[in-house]
Amino acid sequence: MTKHTSHEIDIVKSDTTKIDAVDFDNLTFGRTFTDHMFICDFENGEWQTPRIMPYQPMTMDPSARVFHYGQAVFEGMKAYKDDDGKVWLFRPIDNFNRINKSAARLAMPEFPEDYFMKGLTTLLQMDSAWVKPGKGNSLYIRPFIIATDPAISASPSNNYRFMIICAPAKAYYTGKIRVLIAEEYSRSANGGVGFAKAAGNYAAQFYPTSLAQEKGFQQVIWTDADTHERLEEAGTMNVFFRINDTLITAPLSDRILDGVTRRSIIQLAEDNGIEVQVRPITVTEIKEASKNGSLKEIFGAGTAVVISPISAFEHAEELFELPNIENSYADTLKDKMLSIQHNMAEDKHGWRYMV
Amino acid sequence: MTKHTSHEIDIVKSDTTKIDAVDFDNLTFGRTFTDHMFICDFENGEWQTPRIMPYQPMTMDPSARVFHYGQAVFEGMKAYKDDDGKVWLFRPIDNFNRINKSAARLAMPEFPEDYFMKGLTTLLQMDSAWVKPGKGNSLYIRPFIIATDPAISASPSNNYRFMIICAPAKAYYTGKIRVLIAEEYSRSANGGVGFAKAAGNYAAQFYPTSLAQEKGFQQVIWTDADTHERLEEAGTMNVFFRINDTLITAPLSDRILDGVTRRSIIQLAEDNGIEVQVRPITVTEIKEASKNGSLKEIFGAGTAVVISPISAFEHAEELFELPNIENSYADTLKDKMLSIQHNMAEDKHGWRYMV
Ligand SMILES: Cc1ncc(COP(=O)(O)O)c(C=O)c1O
Ligand SMILES: Cc1ncc(COP(=O)(O)O)c(C=O)c1O
Repeated sequence: MTKHTSHEIDIVKSDTTKIDAVDFDNLTFGRTFTDHMFICDFENGEWQTPRIMPYQPMTMDPSARVFHYGQAVFEGMKAYKDDDGKVWLFRPIDNFNRINKSAARLAMPEFPEDYFMKGLTTLLQMDSAWVKPGKGNSLYIRPFIIATDPAISASPSNNYRFMIICAPAKAYYTGKIRVLIAEEYSRSANGGVGFAKAAGNYAAQFYPTSLAQEKGFQQVIWTDADTHERLEEAGTMNVFFRINDTLITAPLSDRILDGVTRRSIIQLAEDNGIEVQVRPITVTEIKEASKNGSLKEIFGAGTAVVISPISAFEHAEELFELPNIENSYADTLKDKMLSIQHNMAEDKHGWRYMV
Repeated sequence: MTKHTSHEIDIVKSDTTKIDAVDFDNLTFGRTFTDHMFICDFENGEWQTPRIMPYQPMTMDPSARVFHYGQAVFEGMKAYKDDDGKVWLFRPIDNFNRINKSAARLAMPEFPEDYFMKGLTTLLQMDSAWVKPGKGNSLYIRPFIIATDPAISASPSNNYRFMIICAPAKAYYTGKIRVLIAEEYSRSANGGVGFAKAAGNYAAQFYPTSLAQEKGFQQVIWTDADTHERLEEAGTMNVFFRINDTLITAPLSDRILDGVTRRSIIQLAEDNGIEVQVRPITVTEIKEASKNGSLKEIFGAGTAVVISPISAFEHAEELFELPNIENSYADTLKDKMLSIQHNMAEDKHGWRYMV
């Protein structure tokens, strides 16, 4: 196993474990947390000694800047256990790089790579019983950074807290989802923070998403704020369109999150001889393709769901149903991803990382 | 004095006061808070009994949604004391209405008006010694609502906390400021949350503002994300342009905060025979007006500063200096605002509200 000395982390182990009270077959996503958490505070211009301690509430001043100005960024990643009981991460350096890209855009200090990797792996080693084996089972990992300065002036904080908390996640089959294409609301602006996993990007989507849900659509596919013509991404997923046998996904920009799953799907598709086009794709194009029968599939791609097939979309009050097809790219690519993540298939790009 | 029964608020008075340790002549904005704070929790679908208690840190779960998804909104208002020791608010209902407009956009429950007004006035009565008399002295008031649900699923919280905290603010003369006009970064999108006082809008500005500050500009004037031609507002101020003897300010939209100061300045200008145009105003127009000498003044307007005169702006690496003029609208209007706020002038629109 990869060696990780942990003498630089102050560790307080929990005397007890909550794991026996957890029903791993009936988990609500993101409500149950493991026994420990990782904390590292930024004070006096530097990251202090990291700590791992029992998962517990923390004390914050009501004036802490995160409450007032949303100076907060996060990541979402997963750990998987193989049949030998080994725990794996998937491209963790990509998440590390992205949290620092997000942090920089929000005027927050970058977190050091060795603290991140050592904190993450030590925490996972301590809570490894919470990672259940089996394709689809996983431990969802949430690194995040919040501004803790007790002062409400509208300027960057001096103090920050980096944390990692972990929640076991059960693979559950949600079925195909129906999506609404945004015509009025939008997720991000040119020159804005859409490419960052900035906390405020998510709250901004709750209300328009709830309107979509009232109409029977689980998610919104965001379009550009300017013309609402270019298809961008969903709330927590990048989006792929299959027209005939070509997979198309929007190019990255400062409005779109650079998803680790998106990047991996593009590579896996190419590895499997599927043509991928990374280019602007418009609402008009997919409506026409749907009408002439060339639109075969749409699916979302993100860490939480891996791949989420879409059965229908609505735009301008018009509903478009996707066909039921055999050999769907969504199914094939999801299976390939899961197999790599769970150490059940060759990992030719070196994406797996042993804890 | 307006009567406020407080029997519906659970009150715990502080045994001591911190006020004697405060140097009111040397206050850093937003770092010193009064003796008490107001709290009201939303649980089981309703706002619970409000409480006033000694200002103190609070306990939050690391998974509280505000940390992850920026589901948080706030307000900024001020209390003023007149020479008779009476404490006044300025158009508090406008702030009440706005926090609920912000809350609705972020899928948060609206706060009841009687809880807001009673909480605010009771808190100010208890901490009235913290409001210092004299034009320019004030107590800055920060109502805010945060999502407290301990769960990291990306959906609206079930539980919220509404709070009011107060910080004494010393009038300090900052001098005129220099501003940079945004050409690349932007503050908000069509269909986004720019019109709301959503926490995430502020963190998003920190980095571009810090770049402006490195170049010697205190603030950024944001332009539309699409063309960067239309002038919108500054970080915490709406913006007015005086061309010849006409005041111009951008129209409201879903990208711009509907400022109470902006609204009041428009009214006061009209009361004083100054022509006001609420219409789109472009970068090209003010550059030309500056070159031909018709651009007389630019100023920001917001609760914190009342009015902040601007001495120069830069766009496309070109610097434009504003002239020094006598009888500036900024000075006249600021003085009129302060006189009304401090109960030193007739309040013909009924803007003052006695605590
Ligand atoms: C806005 C957004 N887009 C896309 C994704 C997918 O990114 P990843 O594949 O790295 O999980 C996420 C989140 O995880 C997201 O929040
Ligand atoms: C973005 C923004 N614009 C304008 C203003 C001015 O609004 P008001 O006059 O209500 O304080 C504020 C804040 O206070 C603000 O945050």
